[in-house]
Amino acid sequence: MKTLILVRHGESAWNKLNLFTGWTDVDLTEAGMAEAFEAGKLLKAEGYRPELCFTSYLKRAVKTLNQMLDAMDMDWLPVQKSWRLNEKSYGAIQGLNKADTAAKYGDDQVLLWRRSYDVQPPALDLHEERSPRLDPRYNEIPDSLIPLTESLKDTIERLMPYYRGTILPAFENRNTLLVVAHGNSLRGIVKFNLPTAVPYVFTFDDKMNLLEDKFLGDPDVIAAKMQSVANQAKKK
Amino acid sequence: MKTLILVRHGESAWNKLNLFTGWTDVDLTEAGMAEAFEAGKLLKAEGYRPELCFTSYLKRAVKTLNQMLDAMDMDWLPVQKSWRLNEKSYGAIQGLNKADTAAKYGDDQVLLWRRSYDVQPPALDLHEERSPRLDPRYNEIPDSLIPLTESLKDTIERLMPYYRGTILPAFENRNTLLVVAHGNSLRGIVKFNLPTAVPYVFTFDDKMNLLEDKFLGDPDVIAAKMQSVANQAKKK
Repeated sequence: MKTLILVRHGESAWNKLNLFTGWTDVDLTEAGMAEAFEAGKLLKAEGYRPELCFTSYLKRAVKTLNQMLDAMDMDWLPVQKSWRLNEKSYGAIQGLNKADTAAKYGDDQVLLWRRSYDVQPPALDLHEERSPRLDPRYNEIPDSLIPLTESLKDTIERLMPYYRGTILPAFENRNTLLVVAHGNSLRGIVKFNLPTAVPYVFTFDDKMNLLEDKFLGDPDVIAAKMQSVANQAKKK
Repeated sequence: MKTLILVRHGESAWNKLNLFTGWTDVDLTEAGMAEAFEAGKLLKAEGYRPELCFTSYLKRAVKTLNQMLDAMDMDWLPVQKSWRLNEKSYGAIQGLNKADTAAKYGDDQVLLWRRSYDVQPPALDLHEERSPRLDPRYNEIPDSLIPLTESLKDTIERLMPYYRGTILPAFENRNTLLVVAHGNSLRGIVKFNLPTAVPYVFTFDDKMNLLEDKFLGDPDVIAAKMQSVANQAKKK
């Protein structure tokens, strides 16, 4: 049996302020740190023992994973970080308030930028300070691969080579993998928007046929978190 | 120019209780978390930008590194963890109070166990619960390599293959490396006992000739921390 555990990072400062975040490297809130720790305690209580972990280059995901590992008493586990697990780039609307943006451009336009498959938000300027091409953490990545904006399709297309080429092959000599990333970057693997810091568990047989997929945790809490994500971009 | 930054983990719960720790996986105290964060702020303020980090399998080192990376705003940096960077195993005296042990066996005997080059403390029993050979985190390591006690010589001898075979070769395509580990495991590289959470920086030319080695930070704080380490095993 093979087990793949997916977790979306805990609440970030910009989740709370209802801003578009994307590749902006925003920190977790205290509540986000706490829900990440709870997610780790839950995995431990349910008997999951990951052998290898994957996360993005963004601190809200890295710190969610660190909190989980600490709660599991497995700080020593190997972790691989990749920019390919980063959140979808929201381009030039990064830093804008979701509700204000909906009021200005209309719910329909914002919903396209957020939830359509192939519509990109307006792009960042190549040379502006917040361009990821000027950020040293992406120095080893060819400029042509570093997005200035992304549709969901773009995000999934840059995730999949990592998922197929690095994550899935790690099952060859391991049974349980943990991936902590972002709502949209995980959309390549799970077809809906995950709530924050709720482990979603896929179980496969040894030939990688899916046997089961499910949330861990209290169904009422999960339902409330999913509703909260769905409401974020509505006008006030 | 090549830069190697060594850091001993921040204060742990057992440092504070004055117990022998060794391979016991003891957590940092609040003070230890805070001094680790300060060490990261200091590195950032002095303009150091590590490209790759190394730490042990023990959470007091992993969490010190995580705190430092967070303070440097570099949570995304790659980290390699190895059991070879673990603290010296204190065998069967792990968990005993240093001052009580000195009162019982004498300062001289305890000083031999702590500071002699080749005297091992009494060994853990192979099958007792706290034997690292029963700990799943060491499953991938051959039993013959997992110590039940260690002299300083043993510790240095299992560190050096990792230092020479993994850490130093990483300079081939990187200029700055950060190693967060333990007082005794770092003794293979620096010939005295480092104070907690004070970066010690080696600078080499491109042929790896040593140009300079120095502490970063306030000399009075460093002197006080070194005195505190030296006093730990004295009788009350």
